[in-house]
Amino acid sequence: MTKENVLLVGSGGVGTMAAYALEYSHKASVTSVLRSDYMKVLETGFTIESCDYGHIEGFRTTHVVNSVEKAMQLGPYNYVVVTTKNIPDVTDMTEVISEAITDETVIVLIQNGIGIERDFFQRFPRNVVLSGVSFIQSINRNCVISHTSKDFLKVGYFYNKNLERDFQEKVCKRFIEVYGNDFIDCHYDSNVKFSRWRKLVYNACLNPVCALTGVDSGRLELFGGTDGIIRGMMREVIEVAKSDGVDLPEDVIEFMIRSDDPVYFKPSMLVDIEKGNYMEVEVICGNTVRIAKENNVPVPNLSLIYELLKVVQKKIKERKGALIVPKVRPVPHK
Amino acid sequence: MTKENVLLVGSGGVGTMAAYALEYSHKASVTSVLRSDYMKVLETGFTIESCDYGHIEGFRTTHVVNSVEKAMQLGPYNYVVVTTKNIPDVTDMTEVISEAITDETVIVLIQNGIGIERDFFQRFPRNVVLSGVSFIQSINRNCVISHTSKDFLKVGYFYNKNLERDFQEKVCKRFIEVYGNDFIDCHYDSNVKFSRWRKLVYNACLNPVCALTGVDSGRLELFGGTDGIIRGMMREVIEVAKSDGVDLPEDVIEFMIRSDDPVYFKPSMLVDIEKGNYMEVEVICGNTVRIAKENNVPVPNLSLIYELLKVVQKKIKERKGALIVPKVRPVPHK
Repeated sequence: MTKENVLLVGSGGVGTMAAYALEYSHKASVTSVLRSDYMKVLETGFTIESCDYGHIEGFRTTHVVNSVEKAMQLGPYNYVVVTTKNIPDVTDMTEVISEAITDETVIVLIQNGIGIERDFFQRFPRNVVLSGVSFIQSINRNCVISHTSKDFLKVGYFYNKNLERDFQEKVCKRFIEVYGNDFIDCHYDSNVKFSRWRKLVYNACLNPVCALTGVDSGRLELFGGTDGIIRGMMREVIEVAKSDGVDLPEDVIEFMIRSDDPVYFKPSMLVDIEKGNYMEVEVICGNTVRIAKENNVPVPNLSLIYELLKVVQKKIKERKGALIVPKVRPVPHK
Repeated sequence: MTKENVLLVGSGGVGTMAAYALEYSHKASVTSVLRSDYMKVLETGFTIESCDYGHIEGFRTTHVVNSVEKAMQLGPYNYVVVTTKNIPDVTDMTEVISEAITDETVIVLIQNGIGIERDFFQRFPRNVVLSGVSFIQSINRNCVISHTSKDFLKVGYFYNKNLERDFQEKVCKRFIEVYGNDFIDCHYDSNVKFSRWRKLVYNACLNPVCALTGVDSGRLELFGGTDGIIRGMMREVIEVAKSDGVDLPEDVIEFMIRSDDPVYFKPSMLVDIEKGNYMEVEVICGNTVRIAKENNVPVPNLSLIYELLKVVQKKIKERKGALIVPKVRPVPHK
């Protein structure tokens, strides 16, 4: 049987385990596009410590390239799987992958955030775009992957109104067949939009607030922030979800607040800010606020948090040299 | 003529210049209570670089002590002048000064914040409490005072309903007589409440937002935070002031936003957070929100910023060892 040809963009903790799963089934051949880790992976591959698969030395996908352009000689691709950190204000991923997208290519977004399909449908209006909501815990530190919680992946399709639902579902299920194996839990989610909003209840609240205050979720609770800030914000997320057709139960608030127990857990945005890395501000906070605005849902807390984080993101840009602040402060003419 | 006997608590940049002014007139004898700088001041005094007075070596007040208790032998005091950083959640200043307060003692608060007289009137209901709103720029770095903008001090009285207005005004004017001289601008402010609220328009907005985002007021503007956050918050402060009987003109917003031009200025709370020092959260943000609540003024932005800052203040407490976080995260029983 011919293997599915997969292009993978994003080889962090999540992406490398996705690559491993796709190659593991022998149903796919993966070409991964690497940037900073390219030479190191060519030379020694990834070392993986996985709670699902055990210890693996020297893992490389079938092909390893350092640009999508180089990957083109190995195409065409049935799937382009995107597992990068989702920061459209820094990198336009539709642009990065565009040359690899044919009429038949299935785009798979295993990424955080809400409304992340919009840019893709705008650019690729006739392609199937799959929605992967991942609950894996997996970190890449210098090509050593620490994979500490089961690869639990819910996959559905972002509804493309230009295509039949049956077709999109069939395409989605084929991807799951290729990705799945006995060690992991990858299944079809007929209501993946619900799963995405549900995950956002945590991400749109604990992530930015821990990042802004500089404390983990345990300290946030001890210091009064969970009661003083988080519950109210989560209620706003639930209202926005409702306006987008998703009814989240009220008890999701308590579930998410307790989901790190009993760990003093640092959400990813806090880790990002501590490392001076970009945060997923736009897909987690920005799109939520934009959807709220479109649907006339008042979200005073989410809005203010978003405005604060946008400022911090620009500070990070300045520190990375991606934004130049004039030496003399520009002020209005009198 | 007998000199006024003054006890000064707080010898930072503002307090030391207040001490200097009070001694300069020869109308007052100042006893200052020092803690960390005590030995250094005994040995060498303060070095002052002042835009008003020039270069001064070895400045010491008439008496220097290291506790209010020690100061008691040198009392009683006509005035107790408080020029400390205003952090009632860390130090109860009414308790610190209590033994120095007789029925006749005038309490002078040259400090930031709003509603700061409440604790004093509760504890000392029959004393005159003066309100000093200072616009000085003066910093104490290891007993070297950099005083860079004129000592501009507006003084009025916090209205004490148990005393005659005439009496409070007379007491206030006497203090100004003692404090004032030709180099500085210290004058009676019949509407000092207005001046205090006006200053708060800056302090309750730019201070906490710069502290939370980690950028100066110039970058905040360049990065979109002035338009996205500050103007709305300032409008809320104006509404709270109105509910407290103070009508601030709308153009105070633009005035305050432009008041740092053309400097990339770091407001004090940002400096505090960068140094790991406590911030004046309660008197600047907390009291504003409490007054808003008492008067049913909706302040969604001020409230959220206050909640965020309270968390950060506790983080600072933890780092200073003033708050112990349990090794194992406390979680609810299931």
